[in-house]
Amino acid sequence: MEKNHYQQLTRTFQRLSRFSHLGSIAHWDMAAMMPAGGSEARGEALAELGVLQHQILTDKKVAEWLAGAQQENLSDDEQANLREMTRAYQQAALLPESLVEAKSLAGNRCEHAWRTQRKNNDWAGFAPNLQEVVRLSREEARIRAEASGGKPYDALLDIYEPGMTSSRLDVLFADLKSWLPDLLQKVVEKQSGQTLIDPQGPFPTDSQRQLGLDAMALLGFDFNGGRLDVSSHPFCGGVPEDVRITTRYDENDLLSALFGVIHETGHARYEQNLPRQWAGQPVAQARSMGVHESQSLFFEMQLGRSNAFLKQLLPMIQQRFGNQPAFTLDNFTAWSQRVERGYIRVDADEVSYPAHVILRYEIESALINGEIEVEDIPALWNEKMQQYLGLSTEGNYRNGCMQDIHWTDGGFGYFPSYTLGAMYAAQLFQAARKALPELDSQLNAGNFSPLFGWLKENIWQHGSRFSTSELIVKATGEDLNSRYFRDHLMARYL
Amino acid sequence: MEKNHYQQLTRTFQRLSRFSHLGSIAHWDMAAMMPAGGSEARGEALAELGVLQHQILTDKKVAEWLAGAQQENLSDDEQANLREMTRAYQQAALLPESLVEAKSLAGNRCEHAWRTQRKNNDWAGFAPNLQEVVRLSREEARIRAEASGGKPYDALLDIYEPGMTSSRLDVLFADLKSWLPDLLQKVVEKQSGQTLIDPQGPFPTDSQRQLGLDAMALLGFDFNGGRLDVSSHPFCGGVPEDVRITTRYDENDLLSALFGVIHETGHARYEQNLPRQWAGQPVAQARSMGVHESQSLFFEMQLGRSNAFLKQLLPMIQQRFGNQPAFTLDNFTAWSQRVERGYIRVDADEVSYPAHVILRYEIESALINGEIEVEDIPALWNEKMQQYLGLSTEGNYRNGCMQDIHWTDGGFGYFPSYTLGAMYAAQLFQAARKALPELDSQLNAGNFSPLFGWLKENIWQHGSRFSTSELIVKATGEDLNSRYFRDHLMARYL
Repeated sequence: MEKNHYQQLTRTFQRLSRFSHLGSIAHWDMAAMMPAGGSEARGEALAELGVLQHQILTDKKVAEWLAGAQQENLSDDEQANLREMTRAYQQAALLPESLVEAKSLAGNRCEHAWRTQRKNNDWAGFAPNLQEVVRLSREEARIRAEASGGKPYDALLDIYEPGMTSSRLDVLFADLKSWLPDLLQKVVEKQSGQTLIDPQGPFPTDSQRQLGLDAMALLGFDFNGGRLDVSSHPFCGGVPEDVRITTRYDENDLLSALFGVIHETGHARYEQNLPRQWAGQPVAQARSMGVHESQSLFFEMQLGRSNAFLKQLLPMIQQRFGNQPAFTLDNFTAWSQRVERGYIRVDADEVSYPAHVILRYEIESALINGEIEVEDIPALWNEKMQQYLGLSTEGNYRNGCMQDIHWTDGGFGYFPSYTLGAMYAAQLFQAARKALPELDSQLNAGNFSPLFGWLKENIWQHGSRFSTSELIVKATGEDLNSRYFRDHLMARYL
Repeated sequence: MEKNHYQQLTRTFQRLSRFSHLGSIAHWDMAAMMPAGGSEARGEALAELGVLQHQILTDKKVAEWLAGAQQENLSDDEQANLREMTRAYQQAALLPESLVEAKSLAGNRCEHAWRTQRKNNDWAGFAPNLQEVVRLSREEARIRAEASGGKPYDALLDIYEPGMTSSRLDVLFADLKSWLPDLLQKVVEKQSGQTLIDPQGPFPTDSQRQLGLDAMALLGFDFNGGRLDVSSHPFCGGVPEDVRITTRYDENDLLSALFGVIHETGHARYEQNLPRQWAGQPVAQARSMGVHESQSLFFEMQLGRSNAFLKQLLPMIQQRFGNQPAFTLDNFTAWSQRVERGYIRVDADEVSYPAHVILRYEIESALINGEIEVEDIPALWNEKMQQYLGLSTEGNYRNGCMQDIHWTDGGFGYFPSYTLGAMYAAQLFQAARKALPELDSQLNAGNFSPLFGWLKENIWQHGSRFSTSELIVKATGEDLNSRYFRDHLMARYL
């Protein structure tokens, strides 16, 4: 009976995982399948499940078992699992239920109104709702920071990227800011001299879907354990044994759905290759949002827009859409690597994307730490857009500070994950190159398995065994270093 | 606080209903969407949900509240709800958990092996597994019958068709047996003189799907609250707010999927029109399996194969498959009403179908009541097939007593629902005719809404407010009477 408490915990978390399974499939269904009339009943069912999961996780016995298990004789992996269990418990148990409920209500109200307000460029209507979400998020950050001992914003950041701090982010982002605007300027200038041939649409939805499936197969997606469907906001959902990715199709746009599918396939392969021997346990889950995003960006950017990959993809494109002049390797590669300064983060290329993230990070951290207020956002947004991307958003709330959904429901602390992911991805690719001397010639020959094998061995199969830092050091020999991202962008775009 | 216990119960059943919602969607997904690799994790998640639901429903407090609510001042509808709650509680709480688990395991084992054994005509391999399922079902029937005071088989019958007894079924089925074989003989003889033109396939799946959707629209299916998909065993699932029906397509067969969809649309409209004001409460659920089957057969047989309906459907068929010689109203109607004696229940027409059901009822009731043993089944099957349908199944287990899935997992007591449904449907149609003097001319003009309105008013909107007998008496002026089914068959087929 020496692991009695630990075993009680594994049983409890297995149970929670099974309920999460049902919640994940119901969420996927809601986005990809459900007719509108099912919405209210589905919302109630999922809320009831959420209450149940919260009750199970924050039961007093769980706290006792967590304390008791600390005294038990656990293996390294079991200790890692216990650490992740403790983390999950604390995240759920720290907040009073009244705050959780108030935050959920305020978030729903803000997001619901935002859908119309964004269209109408209605900042005045939006601001009071956002203010309430910020008020409650500050309260959450305060409570979490009291327990962890750091800054309020860091306590929210830690939810998505455990172990990351704003002081570390400040250093990383200061480095990016020191060279990225200049690099961006050079790339835009260089590309302004290119003459590209546009692919000719329309690109029928069904052919785009078939092409997406081809790309998924090329990228090793396991169709015995997953599906591709359609939803208005693409995502990767489901469970590791049955990963559901979605996309949306625009018949005038070939790249958007295609690279969207490649992006989600990166998330999917991570999920599909999480350690199955600990299935249902916290240690079997993906390490962090930043690491998750590193896998999707590895697929979409590092590999997906490389010459080697596009060489394999082009015949599939030609099979679906004919042999167009745009579909030469050089033209199509250049076309996939176009860089353009724009207002919208989700449409941004990999060179300008970090500017969007840094801007948001700087504003949201100041907001949560109480250094600025909601009414300061539009001016700050405009100032930083001018500074980082040379664009004015004055009076343009719709395509400025009202463009994202993240803040409306209190997801402060998430944005950095995107750029952390881009940096991890570049560093991982370089490490794979070093570990596999034949890698580039293998990729050029269309043999991607060695690369996927390396990702599986170094990232996917570890789940949450290690901290993110440990994982990255083990995989690449050093902790996160923005140099690799810079090298990648310079090599590809200059 | 005068309804305190009752209110505790409504909250508990609402919670149960929300968990059922998630289970229903997960079941639908498993049949219609899930890749094979998701099977094990899904099975575990659903089993965990089943344990939770059983715990909630059989909690001691539920028994106390049920007793307490009896003393409270409840409206008629609340009393009906309390009656259905009590029924649900007793069904769940009567059996020891060990028996539930043993039955589930034996059923899974028997069904799993049956899939191969049926193909191999392997009765010797199948019989011992079935014997174990029968042993446990007898134990279940004994426990339930002790509580209810009736015969063992009646206690199982009551699960699917509350209030029905074998003594009543014996009378109803004796009547059918007195005229049906003779009627069947006459119809077969009459039809042997017909010369029919066969529709020419192939019938592409996508066009069949579109036709199915057309038929559903014609039949008033609410697409804002439901979907049509594909599964290997067609069913109607989901929740009243979001009904999921499925079919399967055979490109050589136009009728099978089409009438399958029409059948499931009957189930679906019942579900979509259950009383929404009591959503989540037992009183808002469909009355019984027999009444449910009456609605699907009303749509598939009473209305669906009528001249009036086919007149509306034919232009849709022609739109999808061209103007074939087979698609004249006379030919197509005759073709949809073909009667043929066959071995397989699920392929049977409405004239020969009851013979299949009566045979199974006679065997399963004797089996559960301990009057025969598993090894007696094949001989009895053969004897009754000869008697009712003039066909021998000697040595032909595959297309004889091994053809259905019902017994393999212990679903004894279900079969009578099919023929009760056929009889209810005929009686309801006649009552609608009496209540709506213009009905036949409305139907002939393609105006089906008055008929659907009558079904909604008399059946759908009542959920489980009344007992089945009360419901049928209120709707038709008398209790179930097989005369209407006989009249219908004679009018249509002779």
